[in-house]
Amino acid sequence: MKLKILKSYLNESIQHVSKAISSRTTIPILSGIKLDASPNGLTLTASDTDISIQSFIPAETDGKQIIQLSEKGSIVLPAKFFVEIIRKLPAEDVEIEVRPPFQATLRSGTSEIQMVGLDPEEYPHLPKVEERKVISIASDLLKTMIRQTSFAVSTSETTPILTGVLWTLTNNELKLVSCDRHRLAQRETPMETVGEQQFGNIVISGKTLNELNKILPDQNTLVDIVVSDNQVLFKLDNLLFYSRILDGTYPDTSKLIPQNFQTELVLNTKQLVDSIDRAYLLSREDKTNIVKLVMQDQGSVEISSSSTELGKVTETIPVSRVSGDLLRISFNSKYMLDALKVIDSEQIHLGFTGSMSPIIIQPEGDTKILQLILPYRTTN
Amino acid sequence: MKLKILKSYLNESIQHVSKAISSRTTIPILSGIKLDASPNGLTLTASDTDISIQSFIPAETDGKQIIQLSEKGSIVLPAKFFVEIIRKLPAEDVEIEVRPPFQATLRSGTSEIQMVGLDPEEYPHLPKVEERKVISIASDLLKTMIRQTSFAVSTSETTPILTGVLWTLTNNELKLVSCDRHRLAQRETPMETVGEQQFGNIVISGKTLNELNKILPDQNTLVDIVVSDNQVLFKLDNLLFYSRILDGTYPDTSKLIPQNFQTELVLNTKQLVDSIDRAYLLSREDKTNIVKLVMQDQGSVEISSSSTELGKVTETIPVSRVSGDLLRISFNSKYMLDALKVIDSEQIHLGFTGSMSPIIIQPEGDTKILQLILPYRTTN
Repeated sequence: MKLKILKSYLNESIQHVSKAISSRTTIPILSGIKLDASPNGLTLTASDTDISIQSFIPAETDGKQIIQLSEKGSIVLPAKFFVEIIRKLPAEDVEIEVRPPFQATLRSGTSEIQMVGLDPEEYPHLPKVEERKVISIASDLLKTMIRQTSFAVSTSETTPILTGVLWTLTNNELKLVSCDRHRLAQRETPMETVGEQQFGNIVISGKTLNELNKILPDQNTLVDIVVSDNQVLFKLDNLLFYSRILDGTYPDTSKLIPQNFQTELVLNTKQLVDSIDRAYLLSREDKTNIVKLVMQDQGSVEISSSSTELGKVTETIPVSRVSGDLLRISFNSKYMLDALKVIDSEQIHLGFTGSMSPIIIQPEGDTKILQLILPYRTTN
Repeated sequence: MKLKILKSYLNESIQHVSKAISSRTTIPILSGIKLDASPNGLTLTASDTDISIQSFIPAETDGKQIIQLSEKGSIVLPAKFFVEIIRKLPAEDVEIEVRPPFQATLRSGTSEIQMVGLDPEEYPHLPKVEERKVISIASDLLKTMIRQTSFAVSTSETTPILTGVLWTLTNNELKLVSCDRHRLAQRETPMETVGEQQFGNIVISGKTLNELNKILPDQNTLVDIVVSDNQVLFKLDNLLFYSRILDGTYPDTSKLIPQNFQTELVLNTKQLVDSIDRAYLLSREDKTNIVKLVMQDQGSVEISSSSTELGKVTETIPVSRVSGDLLRISFNSKYMLDALKVIDSEQIHLGFTGSMSPIIIQPEGDTKILQLILPYRTTN
């Protein structure tokens, strides 16, 4: 294998695939990035068995030559050192030459780097994904949906299925749900599908989705999502992102969500976030995160927290709209802030069915996003 | 005590004094910030016994009213919470009211914060510093001198005196020196003094100087440095920074510095830094940081590192000027990079007196800065 390539293209591809490299892998070959050079271009592959990422750099794009190939071939190079050294090479291009058995030499400007590679034949094959169920979604929308749900997955490995986000497609609606027993995050979007496709119980690790989100472009370009029995494949231009589907059955969370509210509040989102943030500062010092919301007669809401050692924070904010019974309720302010931060809406709608029942947080006039947090049972 | 103050001024002062707050203090009152309100303004004080910082906010500045005082008085408030909550208050001003015994109430916009304070009478007095030895130096120059030396202090507490930077004033020259047994950093500057002042063996903790550097403005404003028996006081506009002087006698480092060189090299600084940086990447993987410099006949220098597991990095860079014997020498690349990073000069001068003797690093044509690192003894 021998080629010369523009460093910036190689670097971008490496940054993408290196998201799949785990620092704690027990399989030596997976600590490397696989390179396959062909007349069409250079393919980079990295995997930690849960995630596999493949990036393709075309030999030519828009009439610009990216790669000059002298000899095709393959090699696996140690990922960590390869990632760092490519970024710091002095010239705009780099020559990569592999000599038997797996000895790679990189040349760029005044630098020459010899790297001990590994046998590409030993590199595991990528999962085979049948393209039967395929949906297309705008990258920026997908990114937002993941951001609005993945933060609420469970971090405890005692129930592995809850460390993932549930993906469901029914009735031309794509729905993402995550739940960690204390809170739930849900986001839906209409989805035009061919021949009324549907799937359920597709659960993808929250960590994996966070890695995917780092790669997804912030633009309105289409991402194809291919769902098979045990793998989901996200297809972008020149990039394939494979994720394992988590084993197990995701619990039915629909019963957790109240259908009617006894009390409803509409508030300015920023005012609410800032007030809870200040109350959180104090509650955090006591390691409880408990913040209290008390509705007052005069159409305002009091947000407060107290600490025997430090003191008390009291915030009074006006209500834009209110209906139903007066209420006092306590909750985990960190969870409330997490939920409010992913809602991009000027006004927020809070729905309650009593001080011991779940709190429902939604953008005013929009039911596609739903955040739920359980209240604390406190003595006063 | 009762006053109303513009939040931005209070916040800036708090940010300054909070640099003296230690999270591990065993003296409860020192986990607080002391506030003293008088008709002239508000004084904030914080201390961890090694460092004490005092900031004064005038009641009025440039005809603008900063503080409206209703009642003078003092209080000590819990630093961590106070720092965070002030930054996040909703309105542009904040009212602070203290009621007996030490109950503080902060009001800002829709927020009311009650804070349990401490008795200001229990707060330790600031050190008394006699203003006998005073020098004045531009803030930006002082900042640079600290940056060029403080990184090389020892981090080991076995020889506490080496964790500090030595300050000497003789013959109208101010000199800062730090040394950790493997490297030495030295910076001098001419200093006009009244009546030929001088001092020696003034050693200030490197950590303290790093905190001072965060506060010093990047401008050409004058800082007064007052040296007493066991304290140094840095005086800025409305800010006093007290530092303890470390106990003990600083070793004589002048003998370490060779007076003549057998070999001298002048190189482009950026080329040298980038080359060593790449060689460092590999040497770091082997946890040795060993990089080799080999002078070649043709007026170039080879920088290299190798790792049995990963491979080899070889860099060839041109020499701007060379004199003396050909040389091969090995050194700690991390130390070399630290030294090169604080020298702002296009060309760098390296001086050698053999492969087992200290390497001297200086900006080309400038002897005010001197960086020294000891070479490694390697087998080849």
